[in-house]
Amino acid sequence: MNPSAIKALVFDIFGTVVDWRSGVAREAAPILKQHAPEIDPFDFADAWRREYSPAMEEVRSGRRPYTRLDVLHRENLVKVLARYGITGLTDAQIDELNLAWHRLDPWADSVEGLHALKRKFIIAPLSNGNIRLMVDMAKRAGLPWDAILGSEVVKAYKPSPQVYNETVDILGLAPAELCLVAAHNGDLAAARKCGLSTAFILRPNEHGPNQKTDLKAEQAWDFVAGDLKELAGKLGC
Amino acid sequence: MNPSAIKALVFDIFGTVVDWRSGVAREAAPILKQHAPEIDPFDFADAWRREYSPAMEEVRSGRRPYTRLDVLHRENLVKVLARYGITGLTDAQIDELNLAWHRLDPWADSVEGLHALKRKFIIAPLSNGNIRLMVDMAKRAGLPWDAILGSEVVKAYKPSPQVYNETVDILGLAPAELCLVAAHNGDLAAARKCGLSTAFILRPNEHGPNQKTDLKAEQAWDFVAGDLKELAGKLGC
Repeated sequence: MNPSAIKALVFDIFGTVVDWRSGVAREAAPILKQHAPEIDPFDFADAWRREYSPAMEEVRSGRRPYTRLDVLHRENLVKVLARYGITGLTDAQIDELNLAWHRLDPWADSVEGLHALKRKFIIAPLSNGNIRLMVDMAKRAGLPWDAILGSEVVKAYKPSPQVYNETVDILGLAPAELCLVAAHNGDLAAARKCGLSTAFILRPNEHGPNQKTDLKAEQAWDFVAGDLKELAGKLGC
Repeated sequence: MNPSAIKALVFDIFGTVVDWRSGVAREAAPILKQHAPEIDPFDFADAWRREYSPAMEEVRSGRRPYTRLDVLHRENLVKVLARYGITGLTDAQIDELNLAWHRLDPWADSVEGLHALKRKFIIAPLSNGNIRLMVDMAKRAGLPWDAILGSEVVKAYKPSPQVYNETVDILGLAPAELCLVAAHNGDLAAARKCGLSTAFILRPNEHGPNQKTDLKAEQAWDFVAGDLKELAGKLGC
């Protein structure tokens, strides 16, 4: 595909731009050390993350009105704490731990890659994370977004088609002029069905050393790269 | 007011951060020179701008569903061209002239002021301009927003209360933790009714040399400054 056909890039965030698993484990570690030292912080992060998609499915299915991810994350955290039998956290401590998702570190290539891509394209997150979460993360990590797009702007969760379609409309583009950058084949497949261009980024450690999914491009995506700096090179930045 | 109570600043844009009148006149000048050399480009800019509030009032009143400003601006442009008897522009030329609003220059203090404010606060536009308009303007002018908030995110036009209220909610703040920065007393009055903090910026040339409105703070706003660099100083940046 000719990169000059692309006008804007939107990015999946959790796993593609930032390392959610290490960040959540790091933030949970001091709490676990105090209240449940037998629990591995990475296992805790994985358990919390497993509640992510089912919680959004309540919204995607129409059973629940759009509810921002900060709220779903907190509900999921309360569930996971209860399942592990962790008691004794105050509401304020739970609120604070819930902000772990606002404090995730970017992968080593992300900031430099985004700066390069921004010189040529409009760049924005297209995450299921809410606006404040994305803003806090960007300010802490130095992610130079042109705008915060995604679930809260359109009041829907990926991979619902309206997330991709309404974002195309907001940007005033033809669908193929917008490229989704993601480390997840499922997200890219949903975007492609809406006519978007697609870029796959290999993130083989998103789920830790035993990752089984998204270890290769499962379709002939328009671009495939090992990281965001390599993508910038392929797009002529 | 103690500046440490403020967590985020949102900005009116047209008139407060950028000089819409000079920019629109500059973009219209070559078209007018060719098609209607007797018309002063600043008069043309004023005439186009006079259609702005009535067009949004159709949405604010509920007579029309939310329609983004790029669309209203184009409808207003067609009206103004017809009123001046300017014919012979192609649809593509009208589309191009409509992008004048995407290409406005910041006031001389805006970029430096925003960079200073960004070090301490979340900063975002709270404009009636749509997202793509704000993104194009920011990329061209170097406005370092943390997010693009405003009318299109909440599907309503200022000074409807929902614009201020829903923005507070999106940012997860108490109303007084969010400060509207504007050169317009009316915008600030509407924000104050919703509990927001307020900062008035004097822009005595927004409407040209004969400006009659917004030449002074009409209420005791929380902060008053001559420009955005002065505001940054008053907020301890």
